[in-house]
Amino acid sequence: MSTSEKNDKIFKALAAPLRRSILDELKDSPQTTGALCERFSQLDRCTVMQHLRVLEDADLVIVRRAGRERWNHLNPLPIKEIHDRWIGAYAVQAVNMLDRLKRDLES
Amino acid sequence: MSTSEKNDKIFKALAAPLRRSILDELKDSPQTTGALCERFSQLDRCTVMQHLRVLEDADLVIVRRAGRERWNHLNPLPIKEIHDRWIGAYAVQAVNMLDRLKRDLES
Repeated sequence: MSTSEKNDKIFKALAAPLRRSILDELKDSPQTTGALCERFSQLDRCTVMQHLRVLEDADLVIVRRAGRERWNHLNPLPIKEIHDRWIGAYAVQAVNMLDRLKRDLES
Repeated sequence: MSTSEKNDKIFKALAAPLRRSILDELKDSPQTTGALCERFSQLDRCTVMQHLRVLEDADLVIVRRAGRERWNHLNPLPIKEIHDRWIGAYAVQAVNMLDRLKRDLES
């Protein structure tokens, strides 16, 4: 798969609010598919699993099996690549400063 | 506009390959709309301007007028927010290490 195809999968996966919410749930710790289905119980199980598959296919979620459980882990590398693509290493300090300035002005 | 509406605009704007390419062009320096239309001359001017408007509306591009020219600047803050949403400050070092490890293994 080419880099641009991979990127397309990543940005399409991120374009759905529910899939972003799933990644939010995984930020602090991996979760089993069962736990995620319970967390998003307003949706049926199949829908949640479909969204998980899109995230896995985009490499934003990495699945590890343990016995009968599927543990879903957030993969931070594609997120880091988005950052590095448009904010070069040299600009990190400037952007952090800008961000602090914006927060100070807003508060 | 709520944060989730803003986010929706940002991720929808990033979902189109051409809009990502426009941001790539703006990474190193701002560009006039005229220069961008020339850079993407395989498309007609209106199409490029439409994509620029989507990026501006998502706050990924900031426009400054100088005389008759429109200068398009990449706004790095929404990109930084994507990073910070899923990679907390505490995890930056670990993710950098993981990224280096992956590169070493691939090379």
